[in-house]
Amino acid sequence: MSLLKRPAVREQFDEMQRALSVSRSTGNRSTFPQWYQAIVREADLAEPSPVRGSMIIKPWGYGIWEEMQRDLDRRIKETGHENCYFPLFIPISFIAKEAQHVEGFAKEMAVVTHHRLKTIKGKLVPDPDAELEEPLIVRPTSETIIGDAFSRWIKSYRDLPVLINQWANVVRWEMRTRLFLRTSEFLWQEGHTAHADAASALEETKRMLDVYRDFSEEALAIPVIAGEKPENERFPGAVSTLSIEAMMQDGKALQAGTSHYLGENFARVQNIRFQNDAGELAFCHTTSWGLTTRMIGAVVMSHGDDDGLRLPPAIAPRQIVIVPMLRDRPEDAPVLEYCHRLVAELLSKTALGNRVRVLLDIKPLKSAEKRWNWVRRGAPIIAEIGPRDASADQVTFLRRDELYDGEKIRSRAVSRESFVASVPQMLEQMQKRLFQEAKDRLDANVVTGIRTFEDLKEYFGAGVEEDEGSEFKGWVRATWSRPSGVALDKVDAQLKAIKLTLRNVPDTQPKSFGSCLFTGKPGVEEILIARAY
Amino acid sequence: MSLLKRPAVREQFDEMQRALSVSRSTGNRSTFPQWYQAIVREADLAEPSPVRGSMIIKPWGYGIWEEMQRDLDRRIKETGHENCYFPLFIPISFIAKEAQHVEGFAKEMAVVTHHRLKTIKGKLVPDPDAELEEPLIVRPTSETIIGDAFSRWIKSYRDLPVLINQWANVVRWEMRTRLFLRTSEFLWQEGHTAHADAASALEETKRMLDVYRDFSEEALAIPVIAGEKPENERFPGAVSTLSIEAMMQDGKALQAGTSHYLGENFARVQNIRFQNDAGELAFCHTTSWGLTTRMIGAVVMSHGDDDGLRLPPAIAPRQIVIVPMLRDRPEDAPVLEYCHRLVAELLSKTALGNRVRVLLDIKPLKSAEKRWNWVRRGAPIIAEIGPRDASADQVTFLRRDELYDGEKIRSRAVSRESFVASVPQMLEQMQKRLFQEAKDRLDANVVTGIRTFEDLKEYFGAGVEEDEGSEFKGWVRATWSRPSGVALDKVDAQLKAIKLTLRNVPDTQPKSFGSCLFTGKPGVEEILIARAY
Repeated sequence: MSLLKRPAVREQFDEMQRALSVSRSTGNRSTFPQWYQAIVREADLAEPSPVRGSMIIKPWGYGIWEEMQRDLDRRIKETGHENCYFPLFIPISFIAKEAQHVEGFAKEMAVVTHHRLKTIKGKLVPDPDAELEEPLIVRPTSETIIGDAFSRWIKSYRDLPVLINQWANVVRWEMRTRLFLRTSEFLWQEGHTAHADAASALEETKRMLDVYRDFSEEALAIPVIAGEKPENERFPGAVSTLSIEAMMQDGKALQAGTSHYLGENFARVQNIRFQNDAGELAFCHTTSWGLTTRMIGAVVMSHGDDDGLRLPPAIAPRQIVIVPMLRDRPEDAPVLEYCHRLVAELLSKTALGNRVRVLLDIKPLKSAEKRWNWVRRGAPIIAEIGPRDASADQVTFLRRDELYDGEKIRSRAVSRESFVASVPQMLEQMQKRLFQEAKDRLDANVVTGIRTFEDLKEYFGAGVEEDEGSEFKGWVRATWSRPSGVALDKVDAQLKAIKLTLRNVPDTQPKSFGSCLFTGKPGVEEILIARAY
Repeated sequence: MSLLKRPAVREQFDEMQRALSVSRSTGNRSTFPQWYQAIVREADLAEPSPVRGSMIIKPWGYGIWEEMQRDLDRRIKETGHENCYFPLFIPISFIAKEAQHVEGFAKEMAVVTHHRLKTIKGKLVPDPDAELEEPLIVRPTSETIIGDAFSRWIKSYRDLPVLINQWANVVRWEMRTRLFLRTSEFLWQEGHTAHADAASALEETKRMLDVYRDFSEEALAIPVIAGEKPENERFPGAVSTLSIEAMMQDGKALQAGTSHYLGENFARVQNIRFQNDAGELAFCHTTSWGLTTRMIGAVVMSHGDDDGLRLPPAIAPRQIVIVPMLRDRPEDAPVLEYCHRLVAELLSKTALGNRVRVLLDIKPLKSAEKRWNWVRRGAPIIAEIGPRDASADQVTFLRRDELYDGEKIRSRAVSRESFVASVPQMLEQMQKRLFQEAKDRLDANVVTGIRTFEDLKEYFGAGVEEDEGSEFKGWVRATWSRPSGVALDKVDAQLKAIKLTLRNVPDTQPKSFGSCLFTGKPGVEEILIARAY
């Protein structure tokens, strides 16, 4: 085992790291956002675009999304859903139909009003003669346009259930944006289903939340708590909204996926009806569920460390990167030849259910610079092959999850044969380790036993002056009486004043409850309270 | 071999077929569009949406697109490109920069002018207080926004080439739409690359045209002619545009993919510069290339027949559909069990480089109806399994490419073992056969030897009164002198008057030329002339 020093090209990043490392490990919120931004930039995931509120997802970031899509798409198809594609534009009148839905979305939509440009007085402007009769909105979500199709497609109980999904871009206007976490345009999948009765629609809603939980835990190595959102946090127009909630390294909650039971609400305004087996017309019960590119941000905030991103192997675009140490000399030829052989051998291996993904990085950069680029991007295994490795038939490599031995970089050298043989196991081990690390953090940081609002306030230590507070606090799991309507609004306002939100009512609940933290009334369930993204 | 009659449920479609079958086989243009629409509807590929100009791509149609994406994406990555994602919205000022580009696109773009809706006097309208300072256009193509990123990303010759691609939706406003062939919103991939010099950019332009040709011929079984577009048919802002052109069953040409060499045109207005190895600043040479969901329309018009679609197995979402003949009786159990075993065996097979794709269709419909649904959708192999098959350990099936024996349906029965063993070969045979059929049509219908415009006019038999003519005529390959500017505009106008267009100058050319069909001057190359989509 040899120990390498960090090269000079890393110094600038190192300095930033020193400033940020404390913040991450202690979850200091005042600097955590800078740490996050640094990782997104240094791992080359995305950048802001000149279009306000929109981002550019760069190849490494998009590669992660492609792996996420591949994994989640398989799960969505295995549960019987088919992919479709519906129009980007939705007539205003469609949105206007469902009262709560319009209330929820009308405030933040991009509106298309013209279909042509024209040069007037030397300036390119919307052509006044090409104004649309009815403005179109750019989909913020597709319940209305898909429901309209369902109303044409569904005639009889034999047509049910209808189980569809689409991968698409959506737009919800945002003024204050943060890459992946909050942007005006983002990518997602949205599932939409129609059923003959409430029971099967509720079953679907739950099934898809389970799919999201499994995807998050198995593919992203992000443990989550699944549960039902309180009334005030429901999707606009939904009867109930289920969510999975993940804990980031600053202790905040990130809603990682939601699944909505829409009851007959959308079916009634969109006339989605079917003839049941008794020959009577009945309204369908519909569901919808979505998961977005925001999850790339969740991966960063779950697994990033002071050297950049650490990617769960299951979603790493390249699980092994091979950096040949080339010197523009004749010795390069056998090194390259050796690397190509190594790539071919690795490509025949399977790990985590898929072919191993390997890259031979032959860009014209110094190998030390390339090594650090891949460390920052979070490639799980980085092999550096020089003439000595080639002649000794060995592989020298770093594991991204065991980068250091004390202060120094931990570099390993093993025979080529044993390296190739051990790759699947190493990748599977890393996947498990990243999950376990995050799981331990989640398990250790859900605080119970807080019984009054005053104690809650004191626990989070947040006065209005202090803004968001600076210490890692995790979540609080407390008993409540499930207030509704105005009473719930009051609770919500109380929490908002100290920057807290109700997350969800976890699926697993105790058998008996104390009194409600907010109302003092007898409790009926436990709910998670946290600062959130 | 047993012969089945068409079931009663087919009668309505049969009647339509009788009316249309003559039109397709003779390429009668006056009814071909109805035939096309009937196939798109009957094969359940897509439907018009209530949003003017947009379509809904249904599961079977989208499944074809997914297979196309998988195949083409692999080819794009194998040639060194990486996928990214750029914003949907483009500021008007970006489009305004490149004079020819704005001229080409400004007339047909969706313009976003507001970012919020508001209820005013009971009506939901764009909020007058939320007008954008600078209107945004919905991307018709992304050269401008990607070029802007290139200008930030590229500093040195070491950064070149930059080779990226994105899969996205784009919008070009259309008044007269036709499903897949011409819609306001469509899906595509767009590649964008930057290079140090003209030679490598031109090489890339050509390489990607080759990728499109191979994809079209190998995956879609659509033979094409590759060549360069004449000046008047270039992409707005391009130095040269290459295309592949495919012949539909009505003899019309369909531009199936284009690859553009943009020279320094976009680099100059967007300041995409790099320091070359001599330390001087130079403009990059850029390219772009795209292929769209229009190709689904090309598959229909290339391979459809009087019974619906015939899908090349390489892009069939399901290559084998198994229809169990169920009777809601105890005998169903062994039939289903037998079907499941058959599915499992088929799933272990590989054909055309991928796992065989199988569906067990257990929808609650009569098996005869299901059979015809799959015939119309173009599933390559349709197996119908009844109690007799299960007990005899055999498979009764139809091949979509050999549906008839005279007037009757040709149904085959073979042992399960031999069916499973022969599937890969059957699928590969069908793929080849569909290609060969289309290739024979193309080869037989490119007419040479027409030397004057009068002869051309007479050949196509099209007066202005006659509209598009009704007979199958194919294409004409003629010598021309490559007129430019005003002289070319004149040729273009002459052709347009009889509904013809210049397609491309094929890659393979003879050594010497006669005189120009249009100008009578000495010819310099041969060009394809055709009616086109």
